[in-house]
Amino acid sequence: MTTLTLATATLLVTCKDRSGLVAALSDFVFRNGGNIFDLDQHTDEESGTFFMRLVFSIDGFRLDRAGIQAAVAVLAHSHELTTSLTFANNRPKVAVLCSKVPHCLYDLLLCQQLGELGGDIVAVISNHDTLRPVAEHFSLPFHHLPMISDKQVSEAQQETLLRELGVEVVILARYMQILSADFVARWQGRIINIHHSFLPAFVGAKPYHQAKERGVKIIGATAHYVTSELDQGPIIEQDVCRVTHRDHVDSLVRKGRELERQVLTRAVKLHLECRVLIHGNRTVVFG
Amino acid sequence: MTTLTLATATLLVTCKDRSGLVAALSDFVFRNGGNIFDLDQHTDEESGTFFMRLVFSIDGFRLDRAGIQAAVAVLAHSHELTTSLTFANNRPKVAVLCSKVPHCLYDLLLCQQLGELGGDIVAVISNHDTLRPVAEHFSLPFHHLPMISDKQVSEAQQETLLRELGVEVVILARYMQILSADFVARWQGRIINIHHSFLPAFVGAKPYHQAKERGVKIIGATAHYVTSELDQGPIIEQDVCRVTHRDHVDSLVRKGRELERQVLTRAVKLHLECRVLIHGNRTVVFG
Amino acid sequence: MTTLTLATATLLVTCKDRSGLVAALSDFVFRNGGNIFDLDQHTDEESGTFFMRLVFSIDGFRLDRAGIQAAVAVLAHSHELTTSLTFANNRPKVAVLCSKVPHCLYDLLLCQQLGELGGDIVAVISNHDTLRPVAEHFSLPFHHLPMISDKQVSEAQQETLLRELGVEVVILARYMQILSADFVARWQGRIINIHHSFLPAFVGAKPYHQAKERGVKIIGATAHYVTSELDQGPIIEQDVCRVTHRDHVDSLVRKGRELERQVLTRAVKLHLECRVLIHGNRTVVFG
Amino acid sequence: MTTLTLATATLLVTCKDRSGLVAALSDFVFRNGGNIFDLDQHTDEESGTFFMRLVFSIDGFRLDRAGIQAAVAVLAHSHELTTSLTFANNRPKVAVLCSKVPHCLYDLLLCQQLGELGGDIVAVISNHDTLRPVAEHFSLPFHHLPMISDKQVSEAQQETLLRELGVEVVILARYMQILSADFVARWQGRIINIHHSFLPAFVGAKPYHQAKERGVKIIGATAHYVTSELDQGPIIEQDVCRVTHRDHVDSLVRKGRELERQVLTRAVKLHLECRVLIHGNRTVVFG
Repeated sequence: MTTLTLATATLLVTCKDRSGLVAALSDFVFRNGGNIFDLDQHTDEESGTFFMRLVFSIDGFRLDRAGIQAAVAVLAHSHELTTSLTFANNRPKVAVLCSKVPHCLYDLLLCQQLGELGGDIVAVISNHDTLRPVAEHFSLPFHHLPMISDKQVSEAQQETLLRELGVEVVILARYMQILSADFVARWQGRIINIHHSFLPAFVGAKPYHQAKERGVKIIGATAHYVTSELDQGPIIEQDVCRVTHRDHVDSLVRKGRELERQVLTRAVKLHLECRVLIHGNRTVVFG
Repeated sequence: MTTLTLATATLLVTCKDRSGLVAALSDFVFRNGGNIFDLDQHTDEESGTFFMRLVFSIDGFRLDRAGIQAAVAVLAHSHELTTSLTFANNRPKVAVLCSKVPHCLYDLLLCQQLGELGGDIVAVISNHDTLRPVAEHFSLPFHHLPMISDKQVSEAQQETLLRELGVEVVILARYMQILSADFVARWQGRIINIHHSFLPAFVGAKPYHQAKERGVKIIGATAHYVTSELDQGPIIEQDVCRVTHRDHVDSLVRKGRELERQVLTRAVKLHLECRVLIHGNRTVVFG
Repeated sequence: MTTLTLATATLLVTCKDRSGLVAALSDFVFRNGGNIFDLDQHTDEESGTFFMRLVFSIDGFRLDRAGIQAAVAVLAHSHELTTSLTFANNRPKVAVLCSKVPHCLYDLLLCQQLGELGGDIVAVISNHDTLRPVAEHFSLPFHHLPMISDKQVSEAQQETLLRELGVEVVILARYMQILSADFVARWQGRIINIHHSFLPAFVGAKPYHQAKERGVKIIGATAHYVTSELDQGPIIEQDVCRVTHRDHVDSLVRKGRELERQVLTRAVKLHLECRVLIHGNRTVVFG
Repeated sequence: MTTLTLATATLLVTCKDRSGLVAALSDFVFRNGGNIFDLDQHTDEESGTFFMRLVFSIDGFRLDRAGIQAAVAVLAHSHELTTSLTFANNRPKVAVLCSKVPHCLYDLLLCQQLGELGGDIVAVISNHDTLRPVAEHFSLPFHHLPMISDKQVSEAQQETLLRELGVEVVILARYMQILSADFVARWQGRIINIHHSFLPAFVGAKPYHQAKERGVKIIGATAHYVTSELDQGPIIEQDVCRVTHRDHVDSLVRKGRELERQVLTRAVKLHLECRVLIHGNRTVVFG
């Protein structure tokens, strides 16, 4: 949760666990004149997988960015690491897809306005025109792409737009359309959805009705990466709140709305701050 | 959450909603010289059902207990009410069924020792001998009834014992046996179980393994009435706690243990204080 | 938390506890053809005070509004009750006072836009011009009343405006001015403030700095009625979240912001739904 | 929260921040044939202080324990580090001081019985004889040291006993005596107390009465290191729960009890697992 000054790099590493990994990587930073600001490390004992997030200063580093990238590639090759390197002022471009309900969109845009998002929302895209005033209030372009009967055509339009805008991360902010498996495959690990239940309870449609029906005493919301299986992708963040017999579906929706916006915004920030590593169908979150 | 002095009665009412119900019942108390200490009322709009919990003083009441029971029966008949009347010093007798893990049993016995349970645990019954020292430490009889291959025989033994002891409520404190449908039917609404997940997520066996597998960020525990369908009965109470990628199954079990004992004890207290009304497969809990 | 249809009245009652109160009040509703939708009752044993919130239908009631008011006045006189009667479509007018930070204002205006506030925000008033676009985005009048050196004059301007607008409730949404004792006295029980700490910890200025200094592991926010003593008024609602050694003051501010907006909006809704009774320096909240 | 196999060492480091620290320490482990299991690192930017917790395998390490200790001393000297080195099977000896209420004591002893404490409780010491049966049930020696009028004499007796038992950590499990400044000074950073409020709210006596008086909607408990100033020591862990106007002091005590036992046990485990570093009047907790 530390504020990063501009001249930092964040390196994410996944690899088979073995000794000497921390030494090799921290030594690389030290030898080049950097300083480690933040180091999080986790070893999954079951699968023998090593995960690391390393944030280091590159002010006065002996290598320039291209040099760092090349050196990390060499380290990755020699130690068989999967790496991802991000420089702090290279903020990823983000698109928000939404439909008619505004709460998650407002929350993301407010977060961006406060300078806390860790990326730049460059467009709001919707299959309805309803939320145009919200985007415009925050001085953001709004693209109305109505769903036509041929979904493939609509998705092709969306992807053309995302490409033109240079979008790297797509947020589904209560977007009421199911993306095709092809779309999802192309954006693997880069689409974040908010589901309005405490997954894996109440997958699919109308989770608040399902929750009322089952008589649960707590409801939840879940932010996850989208995969081809509905509501089954790796979970990034969840939260819950208490409900009682007094809550009918309407008030579950109201209470859930509060959860949805918080959980989605938190998950988006975690992703954009390079704090999430996907591991099979789970995540490692360095909070 | 008020402490009740001894000379009170608690009346639970369920009926079809209509006007005049509160007036009729509060008038009954007033005319007989009682005072209402606590009144909770809920109307389920969907089904048009009225629920009430009424706690009133019977110190100086114009009717004795038999008289009150008769009067309530008359009211129930004339207004078509389903009622349950309990006098504060008529503490229900409770049996705890357990197997080998002690945490829920300790918590219930400590609660009883502190005089806060709202009922009297009169026996601990187990299919193993492991927890005998716990029961004995709290000066309670321990009955070891090993499971024999013919489950019907074992259950018959249990029921004989429960009847002999005058038990009214059965608590399954991590009891690792599934009760037969017949047993459950005879004890309808009077058996409380703790399931070690946030139901309806992870029903059945090994919920912590399921939780690890799915990569959830929050785990839970659920206390519910036992019905013939496994883990599907009316939920009384739930609670949750945060977990991370660092938690393997062992530490989920440890964190979950804390939840299980708290949730079960809270549910048992709510039940014994006559705060829970069953409504189909849901509960109304006047907390 | 039930949604109220339009033709209802909500009666709040405070009085010395005695028997027959519920009977008298519910009988009044019943005899006039009303139906009780919601009844919450609490007796403070220490002081012997009775509190009640009664929501009843007035569709087909034998009395019109004036008649109900008169009848309640008679009941209040004969039983020595302090009462407050509100008809569901008589929504109180609300003004929001704010300074420069927008998060609480947005949250209140979003709540209003969703039709969930239980009152009508009719104006946003600020000592700065910063938040004008927020008010205008939600189509609400914004009044910029800069603080001049003579505070009395500024407050007189504010009160003139509040009177002209018919405002009944004033919300301080991170308003960075201390109101004079005179102002507060005139608006007793009708000004709600959000303090950015878990009161009574960290009263006064810079609570997040104080929290960092003390090394707490949890921070909070508190919504309370304003009284002449700073941060000492009756508490309506509080909430908390976890923090760690990693949080510096900036991130405490960020996490706290989330709490502040939620806690303030919840408190305002509770107040506007007539769920809060003030009892000395404490509140009874019928949630 | 990972389970540690036996042959590990845990090194805690505090020092002035500079570059190369992680590299030097991880290199030390690597060169000697160890593997890092867990590495947590934090830099306090304000004071420029570096904190680290390093858990590494010593199975097949090139140095024996004495060698590791010597090598760490050399590293500490050359890099100006404050270090603390613990070997996993060197479990610290713990004494529990208590008075009459049993809930915290039970919780600690249960935790120990389950093999989860991270240290060994070797004695229960009390100024009353009340809790003797609890200690004996868990097969632990109980020492009754009544408080005599000359407190110095009583404390001298306690310290003699603690020394004889080789106690390294003292837990105050609702121990109702204030330790002298001298005693506290000698045990600096090794006495953990549970205070029954959400500090810094409600320091001193009768915090639940104070909480009732103030009308808070949430109560808490705080585990902290004892210093010479009452309730002012570095906080290790806190937790809270909701209360309402319905809770009188008795029920606050009941709800608080649940918090106290959990918070204390969690804090003790964190301390015994070498997860807590004291930094002035605050703590860094590597959870």
